[in-house]
Amino acid sequence: MDNIKGYIDENKDRFLDELFGLIRIPSISSIEANKPEMYKAAEYWKQLMLDAGADKAVVLETEGNPVTYGEKIIDPALPTVLVYGHMDVMPVDPIELWDTNPFEPVVKDGKIWARGADDDKGQAFMHAKAFEYMVKNDCLPCNVKFMIEGEEEVGSPNLPKFCQEHKEMLKADIILVSDTGMIAPDIPSITTGLRGLMYWEVEVTGPNRDLHSGLFGGAVANPINVLAKMITQMVDENGHITIPGFYDDVIEVSKEERAMMAKAPFDVEEYKKAIDVKELAGEKGYTPSEHTGIRPSFDICGIWGGYIGEGAKTVLPSKAHAKISTRLVPNQDWEKISVLFKDHFESIAPDSVKVVVTPLHGGQGYVCPIDIPAYQAADKAYTEVYGKRPVPVRSGGSIPIISTFEEILGTKSVLMGFGLESDAIHSPNENFPLEQFFNGINTIPLFYKHYAELMKK
Amino acid sequence: MDNIKGYIDENKDRFLDELFGLIRIPSISSIEANKPEMYKAAEYWKQLMLDAGADKAVVLETEGNPVTYGEKIIDPALPTVLVYGHMDVMPVDPIELWDTNPFEPVVKDGKIWARGADDDKGQAFMHAKAFEYMVKNDCLPCNVKFMIEGEEEVGSPNLPKFCQEHKEMLKADIILVSDTGMIAPDIPSITTGLRGLMYWEVEVTGPNRDLHSGLFGGAVANPINVLAKMITQMVDENGHITIPGFYDDVIEVSKEERAMMAKAPFDVEEYKKAIDVKELAGEKGYTPSEHTGIRPSFDICGIWGGYIGEGAKTVLPSKAHAKISTRLVPNQDWEKISVLFKDHFESIAPDSVKVVVTPLHGGQGYVCPIDIPAYQAADKAYTEVYGKRPVPVRSGGSIPIISTFEEILGTKSVLMGFGLESDAIHSPNENFPLEQFFNGINTIPLFYKHYAELMKK
Repeated sequence: MDNIKGYIDENKDRFLDELFGLIRIPSISSIEANKPEMYKAAEYWKQLMLDAGADKAVVLETEGNPVTYGEKIIDPALPTVLVYGHMDVMPVDPIELWDTNPFEPVVKDGKIWARGADDDKGQAFMHAKAFEYMVKNDCLPCNVKFMIEGEEEVGSPNLPKFCQEHKEMLKADIILVSDTGMIAPDIPSITTGLRGLMYWEVEVTGPNRDLHSGLFGGAVANPINVLAKMITQMVDENGHITIPGFYDDVIEVSKEERAMMAKAPFDVEEYKKAIDVKELAGEKGYTPSEHTGIRPSFDICGIWGGYIGEGAKTVLPSKAHAKISTRLVPNQDWEKISVLFKDHFESIAPDSVKVVVTPLHGGQGYVCPIDIPAYQAADKAYTEVYGKRPVPVRSGGSIPIISTFEEILGTKSVLMGFGLESDAIHSPNENFPLEQFFNGINTIPLFYKHYAELMKK
Repeated sequence: MDNIKGYIDENKDRFLDELFGLIRIPSISSIEANKPEMYKAAEYWKQLMLDAGADKAVVLETEGNPVTYGEKIIDPALPTVLVYGHMDVMPVDPIELWDTNPFEPVVKDGKIWARGADDDKGQAFMHAKAFEYMVKNDCLPCNVKFMIEGEEEVGSPNLPKFCQEHKEMLKADIILVSDTGMIAPDIPSITTGLRGLMYWEVEVTGPNRDLHSGLFGGAVANPINVLAKMITQMVDENGHITIPGFYDDVIEVSKEERAMMAKAPFDVEEYKKAIDVKELAGEKGYTPSEHTGIRPSFDICGIWGGYIGEGAKTVLPSKAHAKISTRLVPNQDWEKISVLFKDHFESIAPDSVKVVVTPLHGGQGYVCPIDIPAYQAADKAYTEVYGKRPVPVRSGGSIPIISTFEEILGTKSVLMGFGLESDAIHSPNENFPLEQFFNGINTIPLFYKHYAELMKK
């Protein structure tokens, strides 16, 4: 494994060319019309797997977007690593805030700039190249399977069924995922906890048509005013979510663990400066890291209603809409939360409006124990590349499918992320530092080496 | 004046053709790009005035959209009526809710269907045809002036200056306006009060870019959540607007007057049915007619922020916006209210966001005394056409320029409206019943006759 750096050096232009080909496919999964792009991305991944040395690679259908599966089984007696990643990306709105075309990657200031540069095209691609290295240099110590899906950004609605139907094919000792981040380029970390998620769209209807706000204003409930009030009622002044029963299954993290978490470097002033806010917000009694790491949150992801064009239109609109999400902590069940929210939201609606709540997607939270061989192997790999041990952290993000893997396949996941906070995933000007990209390709084969060794014991 | 019905009958097809030509010009004043259409509409009006018998008609520039002015002075010793109307119309969003092209008028079910069919192309056009009748039949008993402007729907920002600069030209004994409605086709009414208006756009900025709602949610204030809360705080649970000082200049209407108002026919069940709501809303202690007639209101006309596309995008957005309006009652000053709102709205913003409040337009309320000759002439004219005396009503709508006319020109206005609530002005499928249109053309010459007679006494 000593020549991995040399291999990266020799092939880095080709690596980028291949990644850029993948990025240029606008595989936005939330837009139905982009389906043909999903198939292009799936075929592209199939070729990547075959070129890297897979014995076989196939594009498999689901009821939604396809999954590309590939494998190289060198010895059934050896442990098997299942690499999971996703080929789909987030929408690019607001497009006017991008400095470059989101689907035409550019290298500038030592970073790749594009939608998917990090999440998750860039990160998943590192695994293809690490695998290629191990195959070409005859040092692959485990069996490898790849499952690259196309619906992660919309909550993987068809992957659970896919896993059910392909349990045998997907059998593995560990699932390896790079779809998270580390604290800083010089502070490696491994995500050991993920928040769950529930996402709804709500529609509030007042009068059956847009009304003149002068002729009717004051007598007829305005659905925007009502929606604003209903949203406001969902969180109290202490930042607690008011849905009855919402916190019932939340396991309070112990004082000891919170003290350990508090040791992770976190500069609140830097944090505020990076996003340009004067003050943070959040639930009373918890720190910002705790707000995102161990506590649920309630965010309006989008809102619209009435006249939103240029200038002034005096209207009392018929409808108002919002996209509402809550992040859940491990042990909260999204299906239960989905019902609690719907019941509560409908119950607080005044009789002057009609409310429709549509659940869009959900997923459970996840915790990875730090004493399993796979975690320890990852720990060693990072330590060798970065020169210091990675910090185990609880992330605020959600990869709902991770807990589903455990449920259906009975397999734990290790989240070897190489993203940085400044990568602006889900935002305009997403980027991925070349250094992190190449470090990732460098770190992954070391994981395989240590994992195979630890599994022998 | 006895042959007016015959004249309408002979010319009704031509009247409609001419009106439809005007309606086909998409003169939406809130859209800057539509400026050329405003000039087309202004020229169209010039020709209408000349064709009807004006001695002169001119398109006059303002800093915004043009004003078409025309006049026929038959005898300087006679009273002069200044007809005011507007050639501009509201935007047509949401366009998908229109059954027909808003700018291609259709006659169906006895109604004209189009944007501006009522407000105010249809209603203003009645005056051109009533004038034409009186000229052609040699029974014009007053001098007539026409002032048709192009910015009423955006608050007439340039008309006050125009009035200042053309005081002499616009000199008149009364201003006659058809830009309001009546209670029902069989219950004629004349609007004697108008609410004032103030309209703002607000922008709430949280983080400097859209953030991942998982990684940041719970620690960083979400500008949509914050905007919703700020909006909610503006009105208390009794429907009172909470802006300090907001009600200071509101003159409480006496018990006697409220008792008179309560005699106007109003069927709350019919009202709710027409707009399909189970319950009305509004300030505690007042009736629905009072809510819109004599009390201020606070409506969000539009709201937007975050992801509003198809499907789910988990984002903690950078910005949220709203278009906010309040209707004011006579004696409330919009400029004072504008400052009170801005100060209050900014003061309740938490430190976690930045707020920008932009006033878009405003206007004062207006009251017309029912003992002036012009009101009495209108009363007689309606009585003759509709067979019953019109009810004087306070309308919730605003025509801000009406109070400005009084301030600058020293002239009162009489609001002879022929619109109906079902005309859906400012909404999709705006329409105007042919019967009201022709009744209007029938009623206006009678107003002139009685007005000239009453002014002789």
